[in-house]
Amino acid sequence: MKASDGQLIGYEKEGSELWLWDDLPELHMEAGYRIDRLLHYERSPYQEISVAETAAFGRMLVLDGVPQVTEKDGYIYNEMITHLAMVTHPHPRHVAMIGGGDCGPAREAAKYTEVERIDVVEIDARVSEVCRLWLNRDPSERADSLTHLHHADGAKWIRKPPVPIDVLLIDRSDPYGPSAALYTKAFYKSVYDSLSADGITVFQSGSPFFDMKGLRITTQRLRSLFPVVRTYWTAIPSFPGGMWSFTLASKGTDPLLGCMDRLPTDTRYVNKAIIPAAFELPNFIQSALD
Amino acid sequence: MKASDGQLIGYEKEGSELWLWDDLPELHMEAGYRIDRLLHYERSPYQEISVAETAAFGRMLVLDGVPQVTEKDGYIYNEMITHLAMVTHPHPRHVAMIGGGDCGPAREAAKYTEVERIDVVEIDARVSEVCRLWLNRDPSERADSLTHLHHADGAKWIRKPPVPIDVLLIDRSDPYGPSAALYTKAFYKSVYDSLSADGITVFQSGSPFFDMKGLRITTQRLRSLFPVVRTYWTAIPSFPGGMWSFTLASKGTDPLLGCMDRLPTDTRYVNKAIIPAAFELPNFIQSALD
Repeated sequence: MKASDGQLIGYEKEGSELWLWDDLPELHMEAGYRIDRLLHYERSPYQEISVAETAAFGRMLVLDGVPQVTEKDGYIYNEMITHLAMVTHPHPRHVAMIGGGDCGPAREAAKYTEVERIDVVEIDARVSEVCRLWLNRDPSERADSLTHLHHADGAKWIRKPPVPIDVLLIDRSDPYGPSAALYTKAFYKSVYDSLSADGITVFQSGSPFFDMKGLRITTQRLRSLFPVVRTYWTAIPSFPGGMWSFTLASKGTDPLLGCMDRLPTDTRYVNKAIIPAAFELPNFIQSALD
Repeated sequence: MKASDGQLIGYEKEGSELWLWDDLPELHMEAGYRIDRLLHYERSPYQEISVAETAAFGRMLVLDGVPQVTEKDGYIYNEMITHLAMVTHPHPRHVAMIGGGDCGPAREAAKYTEVERIDVVEIDARVSEVCRLWLNRDPSERADSLTHLHHADGAKWIRKPPVPIDVLLIDRSDPYGPSAALYTKAFYKSVYDSLSADGITVFQSGSPFFDMKGLRITTQRLRSLFPVVRTYWTAIPSFPGGMWSFTLASKGTDPLLGCMDRLPTDTRYVNKAIIPAAFELPNFIQSALD
């Protein structure tokens, strides 16, 4: 616990309180969270990993000082990155996800009875282990039994997947550090090639409000490869600005024609009506992507 | 300009930079914005009013250190509080709004040709004047000619409106200070009584993520008075957590049966598809309101 002497990225003592400061230099903003307890800290070969009990969001996974996923709103992200592709694909037997060592999307995907195998590719083995210890309060036996965890570079792993992938989720963090390779043109091509004949992928594609350029590049790259590309959005309170985008690309089925009856009933965010609604884009997003 | 000696609520010098710190004690969070220039500062009889040029959101109106509306995302709020009621009401001739001295909703309402009169009730005359000087970059002659500005306590004004109101927007700020009276049970009853026979009101009803209790109270009070009450939501990046709710209550038409063809085409956020989508609530909101 080095917080008190200021060596831990992002954490600062303020009088008798500990705060985490998420520095957002590109946005010229900063977000501060009061920490009730620093639960875990370590330095992995890739990054500084910590888990903090925050007053606002419960437990929070922090990598190099940047909040990644929280206990109180992580389900919004996990459900929204997973279910829209899962209900669109007619028979998702093989699911894979790159990034997202917390295995939240794997737990959501395992709710579909037709799923036979889930590959989770997380470059940093310590992230998976820390998440399992501190954030996995709602473990799923079925997800555990289906999941093959690979501690590998996702951009390399995807070039030789063990089987063709039906649904591939790109749960990447910001475009620097360990995730940088998940933003290259070559990676998008590898994603396309890794998918089965009617495969579907979903990319976490950033804030449409703060980084329209990034969303536009993701969309263009996917459009150059896939016949069906659709952007959808939601609000994730612990993410900067809240408004967040995902981009779905499909070799076959259009998500607007997906079968909502397959949606599991034990969700906290998504439902049959929210899914089509999420594809309705505000004018400022639609016009930037046209 | 008192910023440099720290007397201005919320502003702080950090080295050579000026920052605004939005202290959110109930959320145990703080949000910081780098200020390129402090454009205006004054102390009115009600509050400290400032306008800052922020790097993240352009010009920002700040009251007692709390950001209210920004140049870059204010249109989302203004369009979302206004158009859903305007397309629902079959013939909105008389529109009124309580709070919201920036007159953004008035500009949106004036886009409907049937509107004959707009009453804007803003308790602090200086807020209206400061907004007119610094934030009204897109003035509307039609809105100006239709608008009657009242510098009065909205909770008192609404008891004797000049004419029955067809569409009434409650653009209230947080439930303390000048806005506290807009959260009482008596106020909701006055709102009901002020409306015409098929009148519609929309309340800004807070963050469903951080203040579900507040949203639930607003919903319950409106349900006890109106036959049709519907909650809708959007993401407003400069608001804490982004995710934000509005609650519409109608004496007649259900918004889900509103006529989208009446929507103006010069909007930056809302469109015919976004409006019905905004009424689709995530499970965690729906179950809290059931």
